[in-house]
Amino acid sequence: MSRHWFDQPIATPDTAVEVAARERQTQLTKPPGSLGRLEELGITLAAMQGTQYPHINKLWITVFAGDHGIVTEGISAFPQAVTAEMVRNFSRGGAAISVLAREWNARLDVVNVGTVQPLENLPGVLDARVGPGTTNFLHEPAMTGEQLYEALIVGHDAAERAAIDGAQIFIGGEMGIGNTTSATAVTCSILGLPAAQLAGPGTGLDAAGVVHKGLIIEQALARHRDPRPLITLQRLGGFEIVALTGAYLRCGQLGLPVLVDGFITTAAALAAVRLRPELAAWLFYAHCSAEPGHHHLLEALEAKPLLTLGMRLGEGSGAAVAVPILRAAAALHAGMATFAEAGVSAA
Amino acid sequence: MSRHWFDQPIATPDTAVEVAARERQTQLTKPPGSLGRLEELGITLAAMQGTQYPHINKLWITVFAGDHGIVTEGISAFPQAVTAEMVRNFSRGGAAISVLAREWNARLDVVNVGTVQPLENLPGVLDARVGPGTTNFLHEPAMTGEQLYEALIVGHDAAERAAIDGAQIFIGGEMGIGNTTSATAVTCSILGLPAAQLAGPGTGLDAAGVVHKGLIIEQALARHRDPRPLITLQRLGGFEIVALTGAYLRCGQLGLPVLVDGFITTAAALAAVRLRPELAAWLFYAHCSAEPGHHHLLEALEAKPLLTLGMRLGEGSGAAVAVPILRAAAALHAGMATFAEAGVSAA
Repeated sequence: MSRHWFDQPIATPDTAVEVAARERQTQLTKPPGSLGRLEELGITLAAMQGTQYPHINKLWITVFAGDHGIVTEGISAFPQAVTAEMVRNFSRGGAAISVLAREWNARLDVVNVGTVQPLENLPGVLDARVGPGTTNFLHEPAMTGEQLYEALIVGHDAAERAAIDGAQIFIGGEMGIGNTTSATAVTCSILGLPAAQLAGPGTGLDAAGVVHKGLIIEQALARHRDPRPLITLQRLGGFEIVALTGAYLRCGQLGLPVLVDGFITTAAALAAVRLRPELAAWLFYAHCSAEPGHHHLLEALEAKPLLTLGMRLGEGSGAAVAVPILRAAAALHAGMATFAEAGVSAA
Repeated sequence: MSRHWFDQPIATPDTAVEVAARERQTQLTKPPGSLGRLEELGITLAAMQGTQYPHINKLWITVFAGDHGIVTEGISAFPQAVTAEMVRNFSRGGAAISVLAREWNARLDVVNVGTVQPLENLPGVLDARVGPGTTNFLHEPAMTGEQLYEALIVGHDAAERAAIDGAQIFIGGEMGIGNTTSATAVTCSILGLPAAQLAGPGTGLDAAGVVHKGLIIEQALARHRDPRPLITLQRLGGFEIVALTGAYLRCGQLGLPVLVDGFITTAAALAAVRLRPELAAWLFYAHCSAEPGHHHLLEALEAKPLLTLGMRLGEGSGAAVAVPILRAAAALHAGMATFAEAGVSAA
């Protein structure tokens, strides 16, 4: 018997629909292959939704926020207070992800998984704190085993809400001062890479700051490094990163396609895919972040992101910018006429 | 006194608004630079619209269709009848651009600039034929001087309709069996490049077909090559390509931003920019097409396309897929809170 909810099966895209979708693409009124990657995306979405008429109109975005004990080591350009301040900004609609959610008519769900201080009640923000930020992982594991499982469930629950709402795509975002340090440590631990190669400026460190950040991560790795995803998350993760891992795993179980955002979310996706490789079938990758560690992650996951716009904001913003590409691919697959329907001559 | 309408001045983006927009970007609640290219796009759109609250919600797409005498030389994978068949498909809503226009709630305007046969009345299709397709430019100029000016006016009028409708962005598309051959010839003529380097598969020629196409274009260039844009368009262009050039020029005069699509439309944009270099300030480039000549064009225009998805369909489809990126950039610039407004600490 399975010990954990995430040991339950991941859903399987419909291979019969996929075969028919591949055939349908050759019949649509366009030269074969002329829609480029949109054709494969359309086929994949058809298989995921089990229909030749897929659509990506109902969008769900959950932004998980959490604080990081590692900020004590001076690894971020912004003060820790900004995590909570940005949660308030999400709530009031002033953040990048708030604007994009409004623009696409997406549901924006904000979850406090662990700011260092409790927050007042905020409209649209769910309080699900599993602790007052993580512990400084330079000295101790970032969280307890209990906190790890609690944070995974916070993600699980967000995916459930999205599915109940009828979402056709799940976007996870994150906010947490210090979280590029945690995500870099997680990535290096799982992939066996040196921190100096992956550490980046995050929200805006200068060159000396990046070197210092790399050294801190390398010290932490000397203590904690382990390729196993859950052990890595417990020792080096953040509550919002673990929640993302939980959300992605639950999306896979529910058969809800995911559009992974940038560096932090891809680190969470790596942990999830290492835990359950079948999950990979449900993940799209939005963009290649300017954060240097991201391309290592994308390579390890054999992921081909949709956009390269030099973004590095997080919050799910890159995924929100990329989601119309999936929407277009689904609409084209579902809505174009075939040569026979349109009376158009084939080549 | 100016002899032609296109000698009238091109509009100028508002430089004072641009300066203020650049300052505003540093105040928005995000690490400086973290929105990557979206920041510069937001600034440019603000300057174009003369406001710190730009928006790209009202979209206009005109697809120009025309036939090409050069098809006699066997340079296309599809028969000439497909041009008219696809115009009917646009009218009935079954083409890729029809689907995308519906999905984004864009106005789709289809203009017949010169199918080889007259078409029956079709809903949503404007009859503006300037001739029964072009002449085979292997032997003669593709069109007369009179037809050139008529086709330019057809484009001018489409831009006017877009502006009157209150469009915030103009997308031009094209349909014309044989038009990658014409666009390649136009590009080679203006840029002084050899056809063998630029000729590509278009709708789906095999390797031998591409070689043949390159040789035909090279022969035509031996007769017609000339760097002057209008002379090139007359000798080697197509009616839909000339109409696109006219539309872009009029958009520049009206201060209506343009999102250029792929290979054919960029060839039309090259001619327009060579005629009126100030026009460049109004042009965005949607994507890098799989057609091999496109990157030569983008390089010559110092254009950085937004997407690379391996598309090569035309119709304006690449621009329609990319337009949400401009919409997002405008919305973020207009809608995000500043650090002061949100009470968020700066770095």
